[in-house]
Amino acid sequence: MIEVGIVGGTGYTGSELLRLLVQHPEVRVRAVTSRADAGTRVDALFPQLRAHLDLAFSEPEQAGLQDCEVVFFATPNGTAMQHAPRLLAAGVRVIDLAADFRLDDVSVWEHWYGMQHAAPDLLADAVYGMPELNREAIRGARLVANPGCYPTAVTLGLLPLIEADLVDHSLLIADVKSGVSGAGRKASTSLLMAEVGESFKAYSVAGHRHQPEVCANIRRATGRSIGLTFVPHLVPMVRGIEATLYAPLTASARQSRVDLQALYRDRYAGEPFVDVLPGGDVLETRSVRGSNLCRLSVVEPLDAGVVVVQSVIDNLVKGAAGQAVQNMNLMCGFTESTGLSALALAP
Amino acid sequence: MIEVGIVGGTGYTGSELLRLLVQHPEVRVRAVTSRADAGTRVDALFPQLRAHLDLAFSEPEQAGLQDCEVVFFATPNGTAMQHAPRLLAAGVRVIDLAADFRLDDVSVWEHWYGMQHAAPDLLADAVYGMPELNREAIRGARLVANPGCYPTAVTLGLLPLIEADLVDHSLLIADVKSGVSGAGRKASTSLLMAEVGESFKAYSVAGHRHQPEVCANIRRATGRSIGLTFVPHLVPMVRGIEATLYAPLTASARQSRVDLQALYRDRYAGEPFVDVLPGGDVLETRSVRGSNLCRLSVVEPLDAGVVVVQSVIDNLVKGAAGQAVQNMNLMCGFTESTGLSALALAP
Amino acid sequence: MIEVGIVGGTGYTGSELLRLLVQHPEVRVRAVTSRADAGTRVDALFPQLRAHLDLAFSEPEQAGLQDCEVVFFATPNGTAMQHAPRLLAAGVRVIDLAADFRLDDVSVWEHWYGMQHAAPDLLADAVYGMPELNREAIRGARLVANPGCYPTAVTLGLLPLIEADLVDHSLLIADVKSGVSGAGRKASTSLLMAEVGESFKAYSVAGHRHQPEVCANIRRATGRSIGLTFVPHLVPMVRGIEATLYAPLTASARQSRVDLQALYRDRYAGEPFVDVLPGGDVLETRSVRGSNLCRLSVVEPLDAGVVVVQSVIDNLVKGAAGQAVQNMNLMCGFTESTGLSALALAP
Amino acid sequence: MIEVGIVGGTGYTGSELLRLLVQHPEVRVRAVTSRADAGTRVDALFPQLRAHLDLAFSEPEQAGLQDCEVVFFATPNGTAMQHAPRLLAAGVRVIDLAADFRLDDVSVWEHWYGMQHAAPDLLADAVYGMPELNREAIRGARLVANPGCYPTAVTLGLLPLIEADLVDHSLLIADVKSGVSGAGRKASTSLLMAEVGESFKAYSVAGHRHQPEVCANIRRATGRSIGLTFVPHLVPMVRGIEATLYAPLTASARQSRVDLQALYRDRYAGEPFVDVLPGGDVLETRSVRGSNLCRLSVVEPLDAGVVVVQSVIDNLVKGAAGQAVQNMNLMCGFTESTGLSALALAP
Repeated sequence: MIEVGIVGGTGYTGSELLRLLVQHPEVRVRAVTSRADAGTRVDALFPQLRAHLDLAFSEPEQAGLQDCEVVFFATPNGTAMQHAPRLLAAGVRVIDLAADFRLDDVSVWEHWYGMQHAAPDLLADAVYGMPELNREAIRGARLVANPGCYPTAVTLGLLPLIEADLVDHSLLIADVKSGVSGAGRKASTSLLMAEVGESFKAYSVAGHRHQPEVCANIRRATGRSIGLTFVPHLVPMVRGIEATLYAPLTASARQSRVDLQALYRDRYAGEPFVDVLPGGDVLETRSVRGSNLCRLSVVEPLDAGVVVVQSVIDNLVKGAAGQAVQNMNLMCGFTESTGLSALALAP
Repeated sequence: MIEVGIVGGTGYTGSELLRLLVQHPEVRVRAVTSRADAGTRVDALFPQLRAHLDLAFSEPEQAGLQDCEVVFFATPNGTAMQHAPRLLAAGVRVIDLAADFRLDDVSVWEHWYGMQHAAPDLLADAVYGMPELNREAIRGARLVANPGCYPTAVTLGLLPLIEADLVDHSLLIADVKSGVSGAGRKASTSLLMAEVGESFKAYSVAGHRHQPEVCANIRRATGRSIGLTFVPHLVPMVRGIEATLYAPLTASARQSRVDLQALYRDRYAGEPFVDVLPGGDVLETRSVRGSNLCRLSVVEPLDAGVVVVQSVIDNLVKGAAGQAVQNMNLMCGFTESTGLSALALAP
Repeated sequence: MIEVGIVGGTGYTGSELLRLLVQHPEVRVRAVTSRADAGTRVDALFPQLRAHLDLAFSEPEQAGLQDCEVVFFATPNGTAMQHAPRLLAAGVRVIDLAADFRLDDVSVWEHWYGMQHAAPDLLADAVYGMPELNREAIRGARLVANPGCYPTAVTLGLLPLIEADLVDHSLLIADVKSGVSGAGRKASTSLLMAEVGESFKAYSVAGHRHQPEVCANIRRATGRSIGLTFVPHLVPMVRGIEATLYAPLTASARQSRVDLQALYRDRYAGEPFVDVLPGGDVLETRSVRGSNLCRLSVVEPLDAGVVVVQSVIDNLVKGAAGQAVQNMNLMCGFTESTGLSALALAP
Repeated sequence: MIEVGIVGGTGYTGSELLRLLVQHPEVRVRAVTSRADAGTRVDALFPQLRAHLDLAFSEPEQAGLQDCEVVFFATPNGTAMQHAPRLLAAGVRVIDLAADFRLDDVSVWEHWYGMQHAAPDLLADAVYGMPELNREAIRGARLVANPGCYPTAVTLGLLPLIEADLVDHSLLIADVKSGVSGAGRKASTSLLMAEVGESFKAYSVAGHRHQPEVCANIRRATGRSIGLTFVPHLVPMVRGIEATLYAPLTASARQSRVDLQALYRDRYAGEPFVDVLPGGDVLETRSVRGSNLCRLSVVEPLDAGVVVVQSVIDNLVKGAAGQAVQNMNLMCGFTESTGLSALALAP
């Protein structure tokens, strides 16, 4: 049994962490901080937690975070880098669900996030928290950068093709779609249901922060620099990410008629949270709603030389809080799937 | 004032045709046929038509279709090809909103539609009803093949790039998304709201009938054979199509730094139903809901050599009934936009 | 042809007014004001207006409102009462789409709206703009209080029963449901799609401002003080209001077995925007989406002595902007339905 | 560890039962029957079950149901009454999730369900499976009639008021709203997303089968015959029921100013699956999504003498499969909440 704290627990990643942690058999939630809501009971804001969490939001300074074994930052970008150093110095392990430690190149980070990095020296120390890429490093990490939601779906979808050197990695396309909870719980007219309900759109077409994160992941894993066009879209639903990925096969791969299904199945054999569907099956976001799974499907339509990979996750679970708990389990020596075995809620 | 008939008026394209035609100043709807619902008042099935249409569904044989100036087929694929010949012989002009006359190659048609074509000799006669490609031919047509919904959005989106020979047309990607009304009004568990609400998925990834239609359109317009990967998706909303199109610029196009915005603006200058947005503006399907517009936006993200075109239409209007009325206007010598000027309903 | 102005045109009632007015054959929109967005093109915020309105938002002081024939206030409660007096003094006719002039009792108004009324002397002058109650008074009005959305649906639904003295008017129930656009276009976490999508709830159960408005309407129309329990609910959709109204028949009404269908049909015969459905027909909000109709249905389930009336409107049209245009038509001597004849958009 | 079978496992109550049972520590699912899908893997139809259930649908005759300890019928009305007698005779305990055994008066049942009852002699034996009413009887039951979804929400909401004799029980109103999964997984145009999305409607206004079930429940529990007007509505969402209940206080109850909050809190103290919210809190269906809770709130708006009770459940959990598992737990001597402790999934 360990004690954990959550910094910034009033958003969707925070409430989803709480949903998972209050049911986790090895964890006691000691504190959930929020400056704006300090003093308010957590279950007044999130009634789904009634009877499961007897705690009020606290000021970060009064939360006793330095006495926790693990502290999660479910804060906006730019917060964890301010506060992580002190906690790390106190021997606390830190998992940042925001982007502060996801890119190892500080100048790339500063370009995309539009601010100066407050703890650039920690970047080398931080471990990118995608177990399918990095399991051993995560076990020993003090500071974990929890992956972005889109990068989780896209990286897991593209990786086998690039590791096997089967595609022209200069011409990759990721057409990604997310439910609205991915944009967070913040007062903004552009996320009102009257704005985004019954409508569909692309956004950030000119460039999105998750594109360099995917490129960095692939480079770390394979040494290859990819050319990736990445276009996110907003779906009129609450939860779920679907990524449709396009990759032109190399001439030699076309000739050798590689078995894509076997490639994916073998790559992810033994992975507790990656499920490769039989070719041709339909892949719906609801099949992973509330679960920590990434489900994948791979097809070469009309044998025309372009591989199409579909990848679905729940953006709040495998795309955020669930993967964070998976990382915590690894860091603390618990069974990797502890507290993460719930089935998807469908319909 | 002309009299028109609708064959098969109990689906969504039929009811949308009725919405447009009962308000059209030059048209009187003489008959709406349906074998299953013959005798039922049309406004009992479609209450939005109350007080606008005093008509019951009739048996096709009793509908007096041969006395209509124009007959629309809003039937499943395979019906119009059975009945159009007799109407054409009687001097009636025919607009088929299904796929029977969309492809000029009968073997390609039979491959994708899985049946024998009943009137292959009419294929040469049929005019593909996309005014932006074919305006003059439509004016004189006896038989118009109204385009598919996806092909409308994709063809209008890709055409300027290919006409100008700016992209590698062997590596085009169309990632298209549709609201559920695109699947029609038919009893099917797979289209229940409990199945498709709050979820997102790709479908027909291995191959979809609208892919060869786009290829045929581009070939007719430009003489070029394209390589197109086409993946449709189902969005949990009722109306609207969004197509995100990816095309790698040729080396020479990259060097000459062509002005994509000007290219699109000029190509569609004067088109009453194509609206090119200023670069960078967000393009939502709701901005065309209920209207006959195709709105387009063109961007080259990160100047990385891949053009991204967004195209939105209302699948039931510009993607079906609205374009059919536009074609009727051309065929009958009315102003092209008559009855089609309503603004989109947003939010 | 008249010139009109809109004060506060960046919300949903403002944009809906624009949709209707730019297509109105007797109107030219001279100005749309917004302090926050002054200088921004209106169609940059509302792309559905592209090519239909060549205007930027202006500061109220620079908008030339005093030269308009009619000025609409599409502002939050409390604004029109500040500015209407000067415009009225300049001979401009004013239609307030907010609540400032809806209640004639200033103390009741101040209780429910939580502020001091700035122009109490105008209350006697203001005409409540529901043509089915007040048509002649509206024709001559200088200042029209456009009804609330819920009160429109509820008043039209209850009125025939109370006028005919058939029900125990001390025990009326209005269980009302609205799409999210009814809450306006304002930055608020509680209206995010991630908060209200895929969920349903009642709100303001302890008391809602529209309850006294309905009571005042009924009292003005019939002289009777009703006892009304009024509970609003939020539906995960964008547009539409449905009111289910419950009224116990009096003993004498039960005995005389009154023909409810005839009562409603006769009461609203000749009304251009009230449509009474045959008993038993299903009444969906989509059957009035985008239209100015109120559709009604009346049933006595199981002959058990409680009348159930269903009433549907589009909250932004008959519940706001459409009714405002209907009022303008009456005030300016245009045919009442001018610019309001579009059919509902369904599906 | 017991073995259970599910008859008719291809609908939503069937798949929800499977979601709960495959994670239940005391249960092994031996068979899931479906004539139409016999031979198909269960997880091919319900991919959310992949890796959790290694079973194909079987023909009922080959399923070995007589060897199960408990058999659930997740079939249409009219099926369980055909097959339960033989299973009961074989010593199997039966839980029917359909309506066959919910009403004890066979003539009332036959009137509302429009068929002859095949096993009227079993009605006296059957125990109505609502633990909050009937816990002890359920423990010893051989045949449990699992309650309807609406009756669960309405009965739990009304019961304390009637037990305490505080309201005029001849004038009760239940305005109930359900997500579309409540209508089941059957091919029907009226349940297509294009029909029910972005729209709201009442249905079965003239009379619904769940009205007599609520009346019977109240009569069994309190001896009182109530007058209940019951109007169901369809909400454009997948899961969730909200009931808004209206009850006029008796004169003496108004005078004595009874503490409604305390009444409800005390009535349901100790109930593991009923949660009474503090007065005034907002009650959303999402706060119980996927959970077995019924959440209640009670208010007397404006102290005007009409009590308003809100009641929310997940129609597939407490309204169907969850309550069935709760009943099974009681029948088999397991802790009542075993396998039912998952938190609601919100947002």
